[in-house]
Amino acid sequence: MNNAENHIADVTEYMQAVGERARAASRLINRASTAQKNAALLAIADSLNIRRDQLIVANQKDLDAGRGKNLDAALMDRLELTPQRIDAMIEGLRQVAGLEDPVGAVTDLTYRPSGIQVGKMRVPLGVIGIIYESRPNVTCEAASLCLKAGNAAILRGGSEALLSNQAIAACVREGLAAAGLDVNVIQVIDRPDRDAVGQLITMPEFVDVIVPRGGKGLIERVSADAKVPVIKHLDGNCHVYVDDRADLEKAVTVVVNAKTQRYGTCCTMESLLIARSVAEQAIPRIAAEFARHQVEMRGCEAVRAIIPEASAACDEDWKEEYLAPIVSIKVVEGLEEAIAHINSHGSQHTDSIITEDFNRAQRFLREVDSSSVMINASTRFADGFEYGLGAEIGISTDKLHARGPVGLEGLTSQKFIVIGDGHIRQ
Amino acid sequence: MNNAENHIADVTEYMQAVGERARAASRLINRASTAQKNAALLAIADSLNIRRDQLIVANQKDLDAGRGKNLDAALMDRLELTPQRIDAMIEGLRQVAGLEDPVGAVTDLTYRPSGIQVGKMRVPLGVIGIIYESRPNVTCEAASLCLKAGNAAILRGGSEALLSNQAIAACVREGLAAAGLDVNVIQVIDRPDRDAVGQLITMPEFVDVIVPRGGKGLIERVSADAKVPVIKHLDGNCHVYVDDRADLEKAVTVVVNAKTQRYGTCCTMESLLIARSVAEQAIPRIAAEFARHQVEMRGCEAVRAIIPEASAACDEDWKEEYLAPIVSIKVVEGLEEAIAHINSHGSQHTDSIITEDFNRAQRFLREVDSSSVMINASTRFADGFEYGLGAEIGISTDKLHARGPVGLEGLTSQKFIVIGDGHIRQ
Repeated sequence: MNNAENHIADVTEYMQAVGERARAASRLINRASTAQKNAALLAIADSLNIRRDQLIVANQKDLDAGRGKNLDAALMDRLELTPQRIDAMIEGLRQVAGLEDPVGAVTDLTYRPSGIQVGKMRVPLGVIGIIYESRPNVTCEAASLCLKAGNAAILRGGSEALLSNQAIAACVREGLAAAGLDVNVIQVIDRPDRDAVGQLITMPEFVDVIVPRGGKGLIERVSADAKVPVIKHLDGNCHVYVDDRADLEKAVTVVVNAKTQRYGTCCTMESLLIARSVAEQAIPRIAAEFARHQVEMRGCEAVRAIIPEASAACDEDWKEEYLAPIVSIKVVEGLEEAIAHINSHGSQHTDSIITEDFNRAQRFLREVDSSSVMINASTRFADGFEYGLGAEIGISTDKLHARGPVGLEGLTSQKFIVIGDGHIRQ
Repeated sequence: MNNAENHIADVTEYMQAVGERARAASRLINRASTAQKNAALLAIADSLNIRRDQLIVANQKDLDAGRGKNLDAALMDRLELTPQRIDAMIEGLRQVAGLEDPVGAVTDLTYRPSGIQVGKMRVPLGVIGIIYESRPNVTCEAASLCLKAGNAAILRGGSEALLSNQAIAACVREGLAAAGLDVNVIQVIDRPDRDAVGQLITMPEFVDVIVPRGGKGLIERVSADAKVPVIKHLDGNCHVYVDDRADLEKAVTVVVNAKTQRYGTCCTMESLLIARSVAEQAIPRIAAEFARHQVEMRGCEAVRAIIPEASAACDEDWKEEYLAPIVSIKVVEGLEEAIAHINSHGSQHTDSIITEDFNRAQRFLREVDSSSVMINASTRFADGFEYGLGAEIGISTDKLHARGPVGLEGLTSQKFIVIGDGHIRQ
């Protein structure tokens, strides 16, 4: 074997060992009581609280190394563990401890004509692999949600946050041990090389699902190579459609909020559609608000005829997730064209209609094929906390399993249970 | 380009066109009313009924070709369309018409503190690709379930059933047209070559999920190469564990039924576990029944000490799906070992405990990580009809999305719906 082959064999062996420990731990955490899981979550919070100094020191080393490598400012910001961010991790753990335990819930248990009872029981998924980038607090969030849902987790953070993640991992292990749980329930990979990721996503015998959290590049790479199911979150090219039966006051309020409340989130509106018959009335009012917020406007010809200050939108603009103070604006004939445009140009994330017409609202709700479809509400509501899930591991733009914000329930599955009294099949 | 490249380019173009038509048709069937979908199902049944002669003639040609190729007897049997099998297809369509339409059901709609209402709406998956082998009646079953759940489908049957499938496809199109629906809702691929399958499973832009139905070889091939999520059904290595607190009458009845009611199904018991303290009492009685049914027994040493007529089981026997009158029998210390054995050697399909002890039953139910877990009931009950799903497209041994028998609901997803009245995010 040459060096490269040696290296791969070494990483493979390491990751297989991690996988085996995770599978074994998942059998134990599967049957842990709610009280025991909550005790572990609170103990992890206490450990983080006690070890703040160690966290800051480890993080400082990562930040110094990052400065040495000239990491960009946004990345450096995400990498930093401030006292406030440590507070937020601790608070997050306590909140997850307070959430209802989804595991073991039995539903739909009914008698069948054969005499057996058939129902469903909610169960953990098993082992969850999470791949993320620079934010070290994801280590804590992901660990807490996986643990509460009765899963073992293998966490693989960004190489630039290695020491910070190891410091958090030590607190997680301390908390698990304090609650009498197997410390291998949460394993944080301490190998910075990419081959570890390659292994993690191709061990279906040890890993039941992969959740990549990060930029589009990471998610596309993971999805392309994975041999394990992936819960993925790609683009958020979200639309608001202002119908000709919209209340214009609501339309202006919602559209401006959907675009400007925060620019960098996946549920920020990127594209605005307006029905032709209200375009002349609505567009100048909305444009004035956008101008006030310094949002760059890119419009179709009909839009530019009304507000010449908008630049010309090109084909790519209708598919773009700007994550910036830019918006594309298009005049459409009405509901039919709006739905068709969203289904063909959108990213199946979150889309909203502004209308007072009941039937149009109903049609939009049914026919727009997105993970969240809204009536008279800002797309910015598409969020696990706003939806009452308590916390979220991410937002899925997939259709299978989990769609939209993924909370504890999305980290579980349901199995069938059958109860008889010596019943046999005829 | 050489000939092989030309061929691939040609298949690619053909399958892309099929995919585009399916995606467009899925947008239409998504919003078809229940009445319209049911009308189509009944019209397809009528068309099959009227065109019986054409179906038989087409099938006869497939059978002749199969004989020429020396296909084995089991495959020839599955390939044949008898009048009874045509009756069963027609009856199946009428039953699916009678099932409740899952599409559009809104659940859990509640007000959030922000004032918005959040709920979930059940929606079709979109486009479903189904890959199957020799049984032409699968064409009809798969078409009916996909249609009722509001999906478009691309069906790719075995090359040996090509003419039979085309004859059924003609009836399906006739029925769709009679109900005023797009005939492209159900497309049956008329290219027998394998490259069409390769294309079908790698077009995520046109296909939302693949359901392979057939032998393990087919399913492994499809899963390995797919770039689209797969709902798959691998082995059924099902266990019955006879606990030391079992009622022996029930144990004998259930065990014999689980093994002998049908040998070739995925929910047939393949491995029997018996608690040591009841082994001497239970095994001879069960063995006598197995001998009467001419079931070959392969046991561990403890079993062979009790019934010397059993041959020695080797390691592979504990993992084997026999699909034949063979059973492996093992003595275990008790519940703990039984659960560990099932979780490590089983295939997460269906496993049952025979016990009168409440807490042991509860532990088995929770800790056995299989798609169906049973108490005092025969594993043979693991079936969509027995569970009340009305019909099934297959049984999933996956954990994500659908687990166990997959009915209409498994062919749908849920999206979030949000209703506001001009609400914005603070």
